[in-house]
Amino acid sequence: MAHENSNPAAKSSEAMASGNTLVLDEPLVLQSGVTLSLVSIAYQTFGTLNAERTNCIVVCHALTGDQYVAGPHPSTGKPGWWNALVGPDKVIDTNRFFVVCANVLGGCMGSTGPKETNPTTGEPWGLDFPVITIRDMVQVQVRLIDHFGVKKVFCVVGGSMGAMQVLEWAHRYPERVFSAVPIAGSYRHSAQNIAFHEVGRQAIMADPDWDHGKYAPGTSDPKRGLAVARMAAHITYLSETALHRKFGRRLQDRESLTYGFDADFQVESYLRHQGYTFVDRFDANSYLYITRAMDYFDLAQENNGILADAFKNSPVRFCVISFSSDWLFPTSESRALVRALNAVPANVSFVEVESDKGHDAFLLDEPEFHQTLKGFIEGAADACGLSGSKDQ
Amino acid sequence: MAHENSNPAAKSSEAMASGNTLVLDEPLVLQSGVTLSLVSIAYQTFGTLNAERTNCIVVCHALTGDQYVAGPHPSTGKPGWWNALVGPDKVIDTNRFFVVCANVLGGCMGSTGPKETNPTTGEPWGLDFPVITIRDMVQVQVRLIDHFGVKKVFCVVGGSMGAMQVLEWAHRYPERVFSAVPIAGSYRHSAQNIAFHEVGRQAIMADPDWDHGKYAPGTSDPKRGLAVARMAAHITYLSETALHRKFGRRLQDRESLTYGFDADFQVESYLRHQGYTFVDRFDANSYLYITRAMDYFDLAQENNGILADAFKNSPVRFCVISFSSDWLFPTSESRALVRALNAVPANVSFVEVESDKGHDAFLLDEPEFHQTLKGFIEGAADACGLSGSKDQ
Repeated sequence: MAHENSNPAAKSSEAMASGNTLVLDEPLVLQSGVTLSLVSIAYQTFGTLNAERTNCIVVCHALTGDQYVAGPHPSTGKPGWWNALVGPDKVIDTNRFFVVCANVLGGCMGSTGPKETNPTTGEPWGLDFPVITIRDMVQVQVRLIDHFGVKKVFCVVGGSMGAMQVLEWAHRYPERVFSAVPIAGSYRHSAQNIAFHEVGRQAIMADPDWDHGKYAPGTSDPKRGLAVARMAAHITYLSETALHRKFGRRLQDRESLTYGFDADFQVESYLRHQGYTFVDRFDANSYLYITRAMDYFDLAQENNGILADAFKNSPVRFCVISFSSDWLFPTSESRALVRALNAVPANVSFVEVESDKGHDAFLLDEPEFHQTLKGFIEGAADACGLSGSKDQ
Repeated sequence: MAHENSNPAAKSSEAMASGNTLVLDEPLVLQSGVTLSLVSIAYQTFGTLNAERTNCIVVCHALTGDQYVAGPHPSTGKPGWWNALVGPDKVIDTNRFFVVCANVLGGCMGSTGPKETNPTTGEPWGLDFPVITIRDMVQVQVRLIDHFGVKKVFCVVGGSMGAMQVLEWAHRYPERVFSAVPIAGSYRHSAQNIAFHEVGRQAIMADPDWDHGKYAPGTSDPKRGLAVARMAAHITYLSETALHRKFGRRLQDRESLTYGFDADFQVESYLRHQGYTFVDRFDANSYLYITRAMDYFDLAQENNGILADAFKNSPVRFCVISFSSDWLFPTSESRALVRALNAVPANVSFVEVESDKGHDAFLLDEPEFHQTLKGFIEGAADACGLSGSKDQ
C-alpha cells in the first residue's frame, strides 16, 4: 500500500523542509582507523516517507554545498542549491519522494567537523579533527538512513563530490541502493584536481590568521586565504566559453583601463565577490578536510587498480551524467566509469549533456540534464514499483 | 659584405653570452601617459652583429622568464630557458645570428621595475611604479635595438607573453621587423587568463608581508603569497595529460596515505617545490605589474575590434605556432590571429604542434616545434639575403 502523501508543501511550489540533527548512538570508526566517539549529523528532509519506506532519495552535496538542497538557505537567504530540481512536481518530486540530504562529516553546517567542539578539550577541533574520507561521509549517511528505518534507498544522487559519494554508496552498500546517479564526477580525483585543491589548501595555510588551524571559527577566520582558495577553485567550475560569454574583457563600471590594480575587468570583480562572500558561509578548516577527502578518493586503487571490481555483480541501476564543457570532471572520466560498469555488466545509462557552462552546469538550469534525470527517475520508479504513488 | 663571425663561442656547444645594462638617454612616455625619467634595461646578447646589422634576432621572454635565454642562469645556475634552441648550430644559431634578449620593463632581473630604486625617493618603487603595458615593454626594446644601430630586426620571436611582444613589434613597428614568430600566445588575454592572473595577484596581496607593496625586496618579501600565485599559475602551464603522466596519483616517498595534510601525492610535492623555489628568483610586485600588462593586452580592441586592422599592409613574414594541448593559450586563439593575418593578407605560416605537454611545450624539447622554427628561420634568412652567412 502506498502511503498517502499528506505533505502540505504539495500545494506550494517550494519543498517543505524539515531539519534536524542526529547524534549517532555508537562511535564511528573512520577509514583511517581513528574512532570518533561523538558524531552529529545535520540534515534536511523534503517530502514524506511512505509506509513501506521505499521512496527515499538521498541527495549528496558537493564540496561547498550543504544540506539546504531546496528552500531558502538559512545564512544566505538564497534558494537551495538544487531548488530548480527538488520540490513538488519538480524532477526530484517531493510529492512522491522522501528526500534526505545531510551535511557531510567534516562539514561546517552543523555536522561534526573541525569547526565543532572537540568533546575532549571543549575547544574547536581544528587540525586535531581526524582526516575523513568519502567512505566516512557515506557511512554516516547510512546511519541516518537506518535512523529513518529505510532498508533500501530508492535513489542516491549527487554532483561533483556528491557523485563520489553516490559511487561509494553503490560500491559499498549495493544491497541498500536501488538506483544511483553520479553527475559530473569521477571514480577518482585526478592529478590536476589534486593540484588545484593543493593550491587552495596552501592559500589557506599561507594566511597567518589560519594559525595552524587554531583560529576561532566565526571570529578570527583566515578569510583572505580562504577567499583566494575559493577564487582559484571557482575558475575551474566554469568553462572558458562561459567566462567569455559572461564577462569577456568587459570593464567593470568604467569607460577605460585605470592603469592600476583595482578590478578593471568584470571577471576580476566577479571573482573577488565569489571569494569574499564565500568566507562568510564556510569554514577554512572544513575546506582543508573536505578537499582532502576528495583527493583520497580512488575506487580503482581500492580494488587493486580494477575499477570494475568495485561494482562486481552490482544490482544497482546506474545513470551516469557528464557535461561536455566540464574540464574539472571531464566526460572522459565518466566514460571510464561507464566502461567499468559495462564490463561487470551493470545496468547503466550514460548521457553526456551538451553544455558550454562547465562543471557548474550540474547546478544550473540545463534542460537536457533535467530531462535526463527525470526520465531516469521515472523509469527506475516504475521498475521499483513506485510509479503512480503520486496519484494515490 | 657579410661580417666574419669571430665569436669564440662558435667552437663551443653553448652560446657565449654578453650582458649589459642600457640606460635610456631620454625619458620614456608610457602608454598610460606617465613619464619614466630614468629607465635601465638589462639585456644579454649571444653571437655577433654582422657589419650590415641585418642578422639581429630579438627574443622576447615570458611572464617569469628573463634575459638569460641561453647559458647558465646567474642566480639558479640552471641552463637558460631556451638553451635547447639558442646557441651555436642550434635552431637559433648564434654562429649566424646576433641574438638579443632584454629583461622586460617592470621585471626584476635588472631592468627598471617596482623592485628598483625610485630616483625621487631613493626607496624601492613598490606600487608607486607606474603600470606598464606590453607596448611599453616593446618600446624599450626598440630603444635597445636603436642602441645597436639595427634598423630592421631579422626576426622577433617569443612564447606566451613573449608572443604578445612579438605581435606588438609587428603591429607598431612593421618597417623594423622582417619576420615574426608568436608562439603559444594570443592577440589578447582571455577572461579565463585574466581570472587566473587575478587569483595570483589576490594571493600576493593577501599576504600581510606584501604590505601594500612596501616590503623590502630581497628581505621581507611576501613569499607565501607569491608561492601560492606561482602554484596556481603552474597548473595552467601543464596539460591534464602531462600532469597525469608525470605524477598521476602516485604517492611521495611513502607507501600509503598518511591521513594528514603533508604532501602525500607527488603532484603536491612538485607544486610546493615550484612555488617555494620561485620566490627566491622573482619579485612579488613585478609579478603584479607583468600580469597586469598581459591582462591589458588586446590588439583587436586597440583597433576598434578589428584585429586585421592591426596588421594592415604588413610586410612582416609571420610564423604562428601553437600547441594542441595548450589550454592557457589554446590553438583557437592562434587561429583567430591567423585568420586576421590572412585577411590582410599578410605572409603567414601556421603550425599547430601536436604535443600533450600543455603551454609549457614552448620551453621543452618538442622536435616538431624546433623543426618548424628552424625551417621558418632558414626560409626567412634566404628571403632576407642572409643565407650562407654562416660559411662566409
